[in-house]
Amino acid sequence: MSSSEKSDLSSEEELVQKLAELRLVSARLDVGPEERQDWTQKAQQRVSQYLQDLPNSKVLGDGDQQEIEEAVKAVLPITEEPVSFDTALESFCSSVGDHMLMREGHPNYFAYVPGNSLYPSAIGDFLAAAFNPYALVSYACPAAVQMQHSLIRWVAGLFGYPESCAGNLTSGGTVGNLIAIATARDAKKLKAKDYHRCVVYLSELTHDGIGKVLHTIGMGEAVLRKIPVTERFGMDAEKLDEAIEKDTKEGLIPFAIAATTGTTDVGSVDPIAELADVAEKHGVWLHVDACYGGFFVLCDSVKHLFKGVERADSFTCDPHKGLFVPFGAGLVLVRNWKQLLTSNRRTPVSTLQDRPTFARQLNPEDLTFEQSTHFRAVRVWLPLQVFGVGTFRAALQEKLYLSQYLYHKLKAVPGLFVLEPQLSIVLFRYEGVPEQQQQQGCPAAEVNLRLLAHVCRDGRLFLASTTVLGQTYLRACVLAFRTHREHVDSLVAAVTDGLKQLLG
Amino acid sequence: MSSSEKSDLSSEEELVQKLAELRLVSARLDVGPEERQDWTQKAQQRVSQYLQDLPNSKVLGDGDQQEIEEAVKAVLPITEEPVSFDTALESFCSSVGDHMLMREGHPNYFAYVPGNSLYPSAIGDFLAAAFNPYALVSYACPAAVQMQHSLIRWVAGLFGYPESCAGNLTSGGTVGNLIAIATARDAKKLKAKDYHRCVVYLSELTHDGIGKVLHTIGMGEAVLRKIPVTERFGMDAEKLDEAIEKDTKEGLIPFAIAATTGTTDVGSVDPIAELADVAEKHGVWLHVDACYGGFFVLCDSVKHLFKGVERADSFTCDPHKGLFVPFGAGLVLVRNWKQLLTSNRRTPVSTLQDRPTFARQLNPEDLTFEQSTHFRAVRVWLPLQVFGVGTFRAALQEKLYLSQYLYHKLKAVPGLFVLEPQLSIVLFRYEGVPEQQQQQGCPAAEVNLRLLAHVCRDGRLFLASTTVLGQTYLRACVLAFRTHREHVDSLVAAVTDGLKQLLG
Repeated sequence: MSSSEKSDLSSEEELVQKLAELRLVSARLDVGPEERQDWTQKAQQRVSQYLQDLPNSKVLGDGDQQEIEEAVKAVLPITEEPVSFDTALESFCSSVGDHMLMREGHPNYFAYVPGNSLYPSAIGDFLAAAFNPYALVSYACPAAVQMQHSLIRWVAGLFGYPESCAGNLTSGGTVGNLIAIATARDAKKLKAKDYHRCVVYLSELTHDGIGKVLHTIGMGEAVLRKIPVTERFGMDAEKLDEAIEKDTKEGLIPFAIAATTGTTDVGSVDPIAELADVAEKHGVWLHVDACYGGFFVLCDSVKHLFKGVERADSFTCDPHKGLFVPFGAGLVLVRNWKQLLTSNRRTPVSTLQDRPTFARQLNPEDLTFEQSTHFRAVRVWLPLQVFGVGTFRAALQEKLYLSQYLYHKLKAVPGLFVLEPQLSIVLFRYEGVPEQQQQQGCPAAEVNLRLLAHVCRDGRLFLASTTVLGQTYLRACVLAFRTHREHVDSLVAAVTDGLKQLLG
Repeated sequence: MSSSEKSDLSSEEELVQKLAELRLVSARLDVGPEERQDWTQKAQQRVSQYLQDLPNSKVLGDGDQQEIEEAVKAVLPITEEPVSFDTALESFCSSVGDHMLMREGHPNYFAYVPGNSLYPSAIGDFLAAAFNPYALVSYACPAAVQMQHSLIRWVAGLFGYPESCAGNLTSGGTVGNLIAIATARDAKKLKAKDYHRCVVYLSELTHDGIGKVLHTIGMGEAVLRKIPVTERFGMDAEKLDEAIEKDTKEGLIPFAIAATTGTTDVGSVDPIAELADVAEKHGVWLHVDACYGGFFVLCDSVKHLFKGVERADSFTCDPHKGLFVPFGAGLVLVRNWKQLLTSNRRTPVSTLQDRPTFARQLNPEDLTFEQSTHFRAVRVWLPLQVFGVGTFRAALQEKLYLSQYLYHKLKAVPGLFVLEPQLSIVLFRYEGVPEQQQQQGCPAAEVNLRLLAHVCRDGRLFLASTTVLGQTYLRACVLAFRTHREHVDSLVAAVTDGLKQLLG
């Protein structure tokens, strides 16, 4: 044994000693069966209590400054020493759990697009994280890829998309829209020097997120062309046609139409079949944002509104909206899978080359710009299993009818102007403001905002307002699965009461 | 009562009847307390069994075609009718759970960058989904924002980042890198017409994902300039300086340096302080990708390698690598929060305007291109609480020492050339291939790939290979928290045995 080997051995002995010490500490990360059971049970109990109390708690916190500061402080800081699981759970519950100023999934949440918290999704996330497969390549976990694949196929089938499509689960609609528009950019082989001449066509009611998407994909200089809507609030196909012709003549590059089936503001549906005709005529990419409204395609009463979506080049919808799944579940489809692949496949990897070719399925990592994500499919797949599509169909149909019901009830209130809903968003405003009040500096918009404040005043109901074509409306979006008739009744009562108080 | 009112009422009666029917079905989505408890308990038991069996199961499935097909088929299709929770859980476990061809978090997973499955993260995801706060704006849930905020601050503090920084939790490193480089693009006010003249500087060992990131943000035409590495595999700062000067002279626009602290291939660390000097000299954005290696900053033995990171303009790291969190947890920091805000803030929203101004904290949604994501903070925060930073510190130090230990053990094997690890990746190759064998058409690279196949042959160990500067190596990455000395010993034994078999 040479002296150099001795020195190595001595260093090795030291290492072995240190390793033994560190192992004792680091092995704590490998939580044992009793703790796993105990921790899960405690978390489950707190969640269950929250859900039990939800319908009788406020949907909207009052935002008292001191209370909020205390909640924020209750989030334990990160420290060298551990705390007990009970302490950590208590910190979570007393900060986040008790102080959700907006309680998503509450039956009286009628604002924005309600979030929901399907319980099996929570178990799905638990399973996904605990097993932790790498779900983005078939050769790591083919069944995980298959689960994502079957979800995407199912959604494609709902809209009559062809077998040639491919898609992705995303964190939400914006990333879905981003993937779609980036794919359009690449399919049209646009060069950066021309980005400023590229035109994306929207309607006046298209979600403003599309501008952010363009910015992110490097096309912030592109032209956003707002096309007027018809009286049913859909994009006017004739005016779109004219705009594209005009732009082409002027040397611009019309490259994408961003249509919506279920606008966030009004819940209106663009006439997709007509837009598809225009898109085909001019060779422009047609993208359909169905984030809010897409899953209403399950309902017979409105299925016809989605006609033509199967002709769109790309499509997004949000299971975390229309399927009541918690935040973090979007879905994007591209009609021609080759375009999605071309836009997203990584250049051949020269290193780490032991990636078996397992080409029976497309690998999700080749169809998105993300490389690693959590296994998002389970949180959607598990609820679909344990409830069956029929239950979702019924719940969505109920929301549509509840909106009709709300429409009828509000229309019966003197002075209220109400827009008949196409999907589950009801817009209304009070138009009976006496001239005297208006002259005293209280215009109609102001009265309506006061009415809104009155309805939301005690936190038991949560509505939003919106401005559509220059008019201010109160806006009720019915999309919480816990919302039933009595909740809509309480909304109508609050509006009636509010009007009495304001005008009395 | 007019006839029109009658007709309304009659329609309303019909609606009320339908609503009552649909409610009965849709109310199934609101799972009751007994079911919640039962389902969670069953999911917990299956997870616990998986984790119990993990160390004694194979890390690498054999990928038998029939077995895989059966696993894929075991994923239940989506159907109109529900199945029982037990059936759905069984489907999940027998498809995904039993057929993870690569078992992430297995103590013998030495390939790629090991995934992990810290149990409290799974509970964190469960809590996040079940409570489902909208965690992207303060006025929806200030404590959720605070939890994210405190995580970001903690990471910033580890690297000495100034208070002026801001950041985000992302789905993983790629999205972190995307946000960083898009922020650089916007901070440098680059115009699309100049994208093709923009240069990003990498080293020969920089992860190839950066090309994909550039493509996604619209800069696919930008120039990727590979700078040679020094003998310690770090980017050569002098050569970088020269390249930037040359490019500037030639009319190109050097705009970003993509440095790495912990390359995926070698685990080498770029000399950030030296690169920061060059970046400052030329006014070029310095981005540091610390996805794999970042959290080793917790360890005294390698802390010095991260010197200078505090001077970088942006930075990414992956809790789902260095903190053993399941897939789906990345983090990006931008030194100057205003740049991140400018790059990501949405244009003022004209509709849905009832968003209270609650400006005490930056709203996460203004700091990322995403609009809705799941509440990612809990899966990182909860493990940090219940284990304390000290436990992570010990576990990471153990991985570093295990790599040193592996290095020493392999170096003692005759014929093996071993690279001394900087962090926790050990590269080695057999160099003693007899000339006779080489002449018989079995060059050194081939022998090494056969050795790799031998080591991985029975699925009890999982290594990768890589090609670095033209040489093929076997590559062991030690980053599973369950990996301890005996697992490294078994790796060494398998290599020794493999060599005997191949050369015997």
